[in-house]
Amino acid sequence: MSDLRKDPVLGRWVIIAEERAKRPSDFKMEPRPEPQGKSKLCPFCEGNEHLTPPEIIAFRKKESKKNEKGWWLRVIPNKYPALAIEGDIGKKGMGIYDKMNGIGAHEVIVETNEHKSSLTQLADLNIRDVVWAYRDRLVDLRRDNRFVYGLVFKNVGQAAGASMEHTHSQLIVTPTIPSIPMREMNGCSEFYKFRGRCLYCDMIEQEIDQGSRLVMETADFIAFTPFASRFPFETWVLPKGHKSHFEDVDNNEVDGLAFILKSVLKRLEDTLCNPPYNYMIHTSPFDLGFLSYYHWHIEIIPRLTNVAGFEWGSGFYINPVLPENAAAHLRGEFQQ
Amino acid sequence: MSDLRKDPVLGRWVIIAEERAKRPSDFKMEPRPEPQGKSKLCPFCEGNEHLTPPEIIAFRKKESKKNEKGWWLRVIPNKYPALAIEGDIGKKGMGIYDKMNGIGAHEVIVETNEHKSSLTQLADLNIRDVVWAYRDRLVDLRRDNRFVYGLVFKNVGQAAGASMEHTHSQLIVTPTIPSIPMREMNGCSEFYKFRGRCLYCDMIEQEIDQGSRLVMETADFIAFTPFASRFPFETWVLPKGHKSHFEDVDNNEVDGLAFILKSVLKRLEDTLCNPPYNYMIHTSPFDLGFLSYYHWHIEIIPRLTNVAGFEWGSGFYINPVLPENAAAHLRGEFQQ
Repeated sequence: MSDLRKDPVLGRWVIIAEERAKRPSDFKMEPRPEPQGKSKLCPFCEGNEHLTPPEIIAFRKKESKKNEKGWWLRVIPNKYPALAIEGDIGKKGMGIYDKMNGIGAHEVIVETNEHKSSLTQLADLNIRDVVWAYRDRLVDLRRDNRFVYGLVFKNVGQAAGASMEHTHSQLIVTPTIPSIPMREMNGCSEFYKFRGRCLYCDMIEQEIDQGSRLVMETADFIAFTPFASRFPFETWVLPKGHKSHFEDVDNNEVDGLAFILKSVLKRLEDTLCNPPYNYMIHTSPFDLGFLSYYHWHIEIIPRLTNVAGFEWGSGFYINPVLPENAAAHLRGEFQQ
Repeated sequence: MSDLRKDPVLGRWVIIAEERAKRPSDFKMEPRPEPQGKSKLCPFCEGNEHLTPPEIIAFRKKESKKNEKGWWLRVIPNKYPALAIEGDIGKKGMGIYDKMNGIGAHEVIVETNEHKSSLTQLADLNIRDVVWAYRDRLVDLRRDNRFVYGLVFKNVGQAAGASMEHTHSQLIVTPTIPSIPMREMNGCSEFYKFRGRCLYCDMIEQEIDQGSRLVMETADFIAFTPFASRFPFETWVLPKGHKSHFEDVDNNEVDGLAFILKSVLKRLEDTLCNPPYNYMIHTSPFDLGFLSYYHWHIEIIPRLTNVAGFEWGSGFYINPVLPENAAAHLRGEFQQ
């Protein structure tokens, strides 16, 4: 089992995966797997179910059998999980350091049975099912008292860390609150103490009023390029109403989210010629009830620029594109 | 001039560089410059001084002239600076957002007049001069009241964000304290409140006692792989005595630092076959006097793994190499 170790200064956690046999020669330069194309060997394609660990859930035809054909969405354990589902938390001090066992969940949401490389190639109905799968897995995993936080994320393209081409998302559930959501909650909680309002709600209001960073607005959702975008064309998607937990989405919201997510991703793909990107659902910890100060949202970051020493040392980012210009491009105002 | 913009939730700053003319097609996929080899066109080689902005300082032969041959170390403004040296800070609120003008300094330390690709290829005397140059520039820039923090860093290899092969470092001085040193100081200050000791001093003591993560120890410095290493073979170098500001180094310390830095980098290069890497000097803000709770240090991060959605969303890192194993390799205990 891997170790979870905490940096004593920053409170940042690291998963130290137990591959003790690894030799330095294995790290000469990461041999990224090549995209496998429409190969029969893609373990995420229908008919290749035997190439993956047994499914956790699947949306499949009534008459079909588990781990066989007949599905259109499948959730499986990650074959190389960062965290193990079995075991206890084993919190332990080591002098000034803290560690715990690397327990948690690491799942893969295979978004379609066909070898497609982008979520935007799916029918609306199927994207809704992807959102439902995110929600269902979080609702199931939050019942386990050992787990406190669930992060749904997506890596697209090798530069964004994807090793599989077949469109998929991932879910990692951790036994401790990760530092980024923790810091976001702290920031929002400070603001709430002063103003009695949710900072994200204020942001949404200002973005709608001002309009220059707005990418899209629907009845229930908004997409904009954040004022302090770290990356060119960084785009956030938020529910307009105040909601702290993603997994509390209702039927209407699932439809609305599927629609705006597909639209925004399509605009990014069209504007930037299918860039590598990540998206992450930022939500509240499982064991906290409704929070009036935190607001779940999705951060989409195209991976066009490199993060170098300055960013790693300072936490400052250098973004060569004005967020207002990026938004105008994504709204289609600079068509060539 | 670029904008400095603050993320209202995390307090993280972003430099939005004003390249308004940039079209999305420029961002299709970062066209990284190829390493230029021992070309006559390398602007960092002796004889090509006319290809760079005029030098700020240089260590050169007495009879030589500014911006001509005869130097062995040269500090020049970055040709594409992230921040501009002229201007006032212009702090401004925009509704819930904060911004200021992108003023600061962005300099390049050209470490040798010859086309060498690594600091480790330099003679000890020349590495000492590199450390002196870091110190001299910080001491000079801290006199400007508009500037509060100076970060010295190094990018080596394309995967680490380097665009020039000729060995060099960079220095960026900012008009606001960046979020990472701020969070480090906050973490250390909390610890100091409880224990009355510097957290890094405690760490050094524990690392020496325990020894398993120790890479090197000299009279004045220590190098170890941190307990919660984010990256395979991440290595930190710290002065053993408590010092809060890097630029207060004395003659002895410069010699000692040059020695340990060269040795540790050489071990990383030998063990990992010249990996891409970054190093960053973490130090205290200019305008704070001696801090009993913060300890300057250098973080070296080989860039062998990719940062993907999980890391960006959580602040958690997945490190496939045990820091204890990495240290043993760097001590030469697993020679093949």
